[in-house]
Amino acid sequence: MFFTSSPAYTIFIRLKFSNLPGMLGNITSVITKMGGEVRGINLVETSKTWVVRDIHVNVRDGAHAKEIIREISSINGVSVEFVSDRTFLAHLHGKLEVVSKRKISTTEDLARLYTPGVGRVVKAIEKIPDIAFTYTIKSNTVAIVTDGSAVLGFGNVGPYAAIPVMEGKAAILKEFAGVNGFPICLATQDIDQIVSIVKAISPVFGAINLEDISAPRCFEVERRLQEELDIPVMHDDQHATAIIVLAALLNSLKIVGKSFSDIKIVINGAGAAGIATTKLLLKLGIKNIILCDKKGAIGRDGENALNDYQVDVAQYTNPDNYKGDLKGALKGADVFIGLSVGNILKGEDLRFMEKDAIVFALANPIPEVDPLDAERYARIVATGRSDFPNQINNALVYPGFFKGVLNVRAKKIVDDMKIAAAYAIANLIDDSELYEEYIIPSIFDQRVVNAVSDAVATIAIREGLIRSLEQLKDISEF
Amino acid sequence: MFFTSSPAYTIFIRLKFSNLPGMLGNITSVITKMGGEVRGINLVETSKTWVVRDIHVNVRDGAHAKEIIREISSINGVSVEFVSDRTFLAHLHGKLEVVSKRKISTTEDLARLYTPGVGRVVKAIEKIPDIAFTYTIKSNTVAIVTDGSAVLGFGNVGPYAAIPVMEGKAAILKEFAGVNGFPICLATQDIDQIVSIVKAISPVFGAINLEDISAPRCFEVERRLQEELDIPVMHDDQHATAIIVLAALLNSLKIVGKSFSDIKIVINGAGAAGIATTKLLLKLGIKNIILCDKKGAIGRDGENALNDYQVDVAQYTNPDNYKGDLKGALKGADVFIGLSVGNILKGEDLRFMEKDAIVFALANPIPEVDPLDAERYARIVATGRSDFPNQINNALVYPGFFKGVLNVRAKKIVDDMKIAAAYAIANLIDDSELYEEYIIPSIFDQRVVNAVSDAVATIAIREGLIRSLEQLKDISEF
Repeated sequence: MFFTSSPAYTIFIRLKFSNLPGMLGNITSVITKMGGEVRGINLVETSKTWVVRDIHVNVRDGAHAKEIIREISSINGVSVEFVSDRTFLAHLHGKLEVVSKRKISTTEDLARLYTPGVGRVVKAIEKIPDIAFTYTIKSNTVAIVTDGSAVLGFGNVGPYAAIPVMEGKAAILKEFAGVNGFPICLATQDIDQIVSIVKAISPVFGAINLEDISAPRCFEVERRLQEELDIPVMHDDQHATAIIVLAALLNSLKIVGKSFSDIKIVINGAGAAGIATTKLLLKLGIKNIILCDKKGAIGRDGENALNDYQVDVAQYTNPDNYKGDLKGALKGADVFIGLSVGNILKGEDLRFMEKDAIVFALANPIPEVDPLDAERYARIVATGRSDFPNQINNALVYPGFFKGVLNVRAKKIVDDMKIAAAYAIANLIDDSELYEEYIIPSIFDQRVVNAVSDAVATIAIREGLIRSLEQLKDISEF
Repeated sequence: MFFTSSPAYTIFIRLKFSNLPGMLGNITSVITKMGGEVRGINLVETSKTWVVRDIHVNVRDGAHAKEIIREISSINGVSVEFVSDRTFLAHLHGKLEVVSKRKISTTEDLARLYTPGVGRVVKAIEKIPDIAFTYTIKSNTVAIVTDGSAVLGFGNVGPYAAIPVMEGKAAILKEFAGVNGFPICLATQDIDQIVSIVKAISPVFGAINLEDISAPRCFEVERRLQEELDIPVMHDDQHATAIIVLAALLNSLKIVGKSFSDIKIVINGAGAAGIATTKLLLKLGIKNIILCDKKGAIGRDGENALNDYQVDVAQYTNPDNYKGDLKGALKGADVFIGLSVGNILKGEDLRFMEKDAIVFALANPIPEVDPLDAERYARIVATGRSDFPNQINNALVYPGFFKGVLNVRAKKIVDDMKIAAAYAIANLIDDSELYEEYIIPSIFDQRVVNAVSDAVATIAIREGLIRSLEQLKDISEF
């Protein structure tokens, strides 16, 4: 595999040691001897007998950091209080802030933003509740809801460990699309409770982003919330992934000159993302899809399925009712889409795919197949990684998608919005620019957010899904 | 009453009218003739036949605005699209933003703040959940929870109309104390549901601020959450009010030279704030308190009480078991504390109070008694209003209080913290500065937040209520 250990990084070591001449010199020379590079030394606290200092050290990797710390700890009179690094420090006290859009410096500010002024807005919303979409953060705020059951590739880590990921989502929503997101990390994994809690907290939000909830529970949670709430509800892991896969597929097919009606697609991993992607591709008229999971290909009759959702979607797939393993399914396939786990295929397993094969190996951080290996057998290869061409990342989708539904106060999300978003992303790459290693825009391509939000909003308007606000024509009554 | 209508304010009128020469002149001359002052005209949209313009007009009050708008509407070819004013515009799209503390401009930023870097923080918190207090917004974020049942003086306006108030609270928390607050406006008023929802969403928060929940339900909600959560839970309307009343009382008693053991206090309004204030004053050893509500004085035996909570607290009050009306109760009282509704007493109703009477008429926006009227009978008068000396506002308390408990990761709130906070606020005014019209610091006195937070944190440390963090000594394992 080409994946080396993470690049050299800086660690921050807080040491408490005897306040004796030469101690600091001892410590730094130990670090240097071990191959660490001392980049800075700060004084934290001192007394007559001891001193606390932070030492910044460049190291090669985690193992190297560990060796250095062990060696320092063994120096007589030195204790290691705390060790951190850039990644952990970037998370210190969290990545988000809730700030006031307006300064509060005078009694007049307070009277306008709080009592008595706020009372007039309260009365207006009490009379016409939809006015909350104009005069509160409901206009532009998404709940990022998880139960911590399927966080990144780590599985059921619980609501506390899920917080940094939800904060990251919120940070991306704001930085990329100007949308407010707030983490709701639930200390329950009961479907009924999740549904009733999200309904109860929904008044302050303009949309609900479900996140990292394990399949198949995520399907029921999403369906019920979509039925019972009058604001858009989207499970990101399903639909943002399906959309970005579709966008990448649209451009890949252009390059290889194949069309939806002729291709055979194999999708591995029939979880949240796999099922949503299959459904979206079916919607576009693709007939020959084989969906595989742990037991192998899921039969059209539901054989090898692990749950009812898999049975349900499988009946529209697998026209030849193939029931063997993944490798067998790949025979004659034009497209492989991996939404499963790392390192399950070798490059040569792709050798019986059709000519001009397209391989999306999206497991993170380790793809289903080493992309360099895959390139020997496939014409187009994409992964979820930022250190390889063609990064298929759902962060290309959700900021613009939520911006779009919020901008027009959409009441719900429909499949046509997802399809429009995929085309909008794909079309950002001009035919003249398109080639095997540029099938999808960069995550930092600033055109993406507005392309997606405009596409989504246009469908919402066309389908009559927008909320027309009863305007407050006469504020003088409040 | 000295309260005049609100001062002159600027309204924003959006007009659509025929694109004919002279129309704009017609409109502005109508406004001027009506006594309005045109302050600005903006073009919004135009076509060959019509034009949309915003006109900013200074008016005297709401009624005046209404007259002007009616007159403009009657001009042939003019339609009023929308009317707003400074207060409503200050609320446009809400008062809060959720922002990223760090810019995300490069792949490296993303790798550190999101995948794969965030995965290391996830694993660390999964192993040691308390580390969420170091590496997530839990360290510094308060849920501002309401069910919309007792919002400002308006009562049960529901969760949507409550949003602007909760946003205001969050804005104040951030602007005054640097603490993040986020509005949780619940679409349920069922006690069991409120308790279970707040528990379920608690992982991301370091403290819970209950807000504008009606009495007596607020007492049970608070008690149960305090029992079942391991983070501080405080119902602001109760305790922040009790604390600021105590602070004002401490300084008032200094001025008049009376002590806790000798005084008679009458409290009107045995709701959330009234009961909490009574309990806090009892805690300080004040024996002679008469608590009054709609039926009059609540007997020591519970007569005239409206609920069990009133019965419960009343048994420690009213030593002479007085059961008449409020005016009778005031006879011989040293202190009146109004936490009820506006305009229920005349100045002369205070005439049988003791010499050097202290009157806190805190109903908002209209005090229980006109303060100018009250001054003829009382030595010290305070209200909740910013346009009168001695504004007793709980915004002096809660920013610093939450900052204090968060700073030391307190597990719970105890009465000694409240008492310490009150003394800290009172003591900011030096004896040499203290006089009848300066018993409490200004809400913009920047010393207040740290005085309160230090006092609260000191008690938390003294009482062993702080969470000692298991530090992440070795980040290299993640």
